Amino acid sequence: MLNEIKNHRSVRKYKDEQIPDVVLNEILTAGLRASNTGNMQLYSIVVTRSSDIKQKLAPAHFNQPMVMGAPVVLTFCADVNRFTKWCQQRNADAGFYNMESLITAFVDASLAAENVCLEAEAHGLGICYLGTTTYNVRQIIDALQLPKGVVPVTTVTLGYPDGEAPMSSRLPLNAVVHDETYHDYSPADIDNAYAEMESDPSNQKFIDVNNKQNLAQVFAEVRYSKANNEYFSKELLEAFRQQGMM
Amino acid sequence: MLNEIKNHRSVRKYKDEQIPDVVLNEILTAGLRASNTGNMQLYSIVVTRSSDIKQKLAPAHFNQPMVMGAPVVLTFCADVNRFTKWCQQRNADAGFYNMESLITAFVDASLAAENVCLEAEAHGLGICYLGTTTYNVRQIIDALQLPKGVVPVTTVTLGYPDGEAPMSSRLPLNAVVHDETYHDYSPADIDNAYAEMESDPSNQKFIDVNNKQNLAQVFAEVRYSKANNEYFSKELLEAFRQQGMM
Repeated sequence: MLNEIKNHRSVRKYKDEQIPDVVLNEILTAGLRASNTGNMQLYSIVVTRSSDIKQKLAPAHFNQPMVMGAPVVLTFCADVNRFTKWCQQRNADAGFYNMESLITAFVDASLAAENVCLEAEAHGLGICYLGTTTYNVRQIIDALQLPKGVVPVTTVTLGYPDGEAPMSSRLPLNAVVHDETYHDYSPADIDNAYAEMESDPSNQKFIDVNNKQNLAQVFAEVRYSKANNEYFSKELLEAFRQQGMM
Repeated sequence: MLNEIKNHRSVRKYKDEQIPDVVLNEILTAGLRASNTGNMQLYSIVVTRSSDIKQKLAPAHFNQPMVMGAPVVLTFCADVNRFTKWCQQRNADAGFYNMESLITAFVDASLAAENVCLEAEAHGLGICYLGTTTYNVRQIIDALQLPKGVVPVTTVTLGYPDGEAPMSSRLPLNAVVHDETYHDYSPADIDNAYAEMESDPSNQKFIDVNNKQNLAQVFAEVRYSKANNEYFSKELLEAFRQQGMM
């Protein structure tokens, strides 16, 4: 398996060391090489290094320390603004302000992000994705001055690792892969899929500290609660509307 | 730059040669190693090899020849069904049937897909993404028997390359990357961004054959027309609703 894939771990602590421009440019160029729909490249990447802008981004990411701690913060955005401007400038009747184009752009921006991360790891850098990007979308839009047609998709913090980060376990292959068509899960399938994760002793502390009976309750009732997910869903759709995508 | 990233090209013609299970399993395992939100792994991968199911998938992809021509078709799906079943079985109050979780899952499925593609290329395989996946979502849902909570995100065809595929050009880095915050494009910026693509003589035939004045018109008025994008947007939102995600 490719070393960068096999050895990937989320790195949350970085050395106080800048990333040379030549390295960063090669990493970003690797992102642009990713496949994308029709070669329209409906995405943009905002590179944030200044303390000022990071301070504006940090609350949107619930002040996770990686935002201020990493030398570089990359915000990958779905972007139909650039392509539409090109079409308009060429007298072409463009229609990309809609959900189909937005979702296409979400996938394409994600593929570019994964290339960036693997290339960064090949250069000895550590990365961490911030899933919080789609929670407080409007704060990020404001912080990065994203115009209509541009929506943040995911954020990657980037820097030289300080210390060894732990590797996360994953579900067994047969829990995620379906043969020919989708085979829905029996109760026994579910038990098997999550058995390893549930037996990992390092998860017990999360159950104890949150006063829950099991790991599923920690996920569903604390970390990713229904109330939060529904609130962020409303906010997300409102941001899509605000950016002209619905 | 990582060889797989540097040399990536979309491969649309495949040899009549099966992919050994041990190779396919390593490729899929590489997918699972990708970063994902909270390690919830809200995605599934459907592996289609049978002619029967491929025949059902093909029309959803406008009968692009890669579907029938590739030994393996991978459909990456956002999946909150498995995780929700686990939560329910553990008496945890789960709320993942919403847009926030769906969008999170779209990103995570895409990151897994890109790992799969790079690992496949490291094994000498060729890949092609099918952006058509989000066009005829409901046909794919039917063909693969996807239950509520599961939505197709992207499709990858996989096989040993038959012949040399061309490499696509990309926008220059400074057309996609923004320093600190988003800098909106002036008319001159737009001209510069698309100059190389517009001067590529291989694009001239698309302009001629479609009776258009320029490449932007081919994109916006023929390949990805406003009417189609708006139709597919409605279909996509209807599919999200049908799968219980809105």
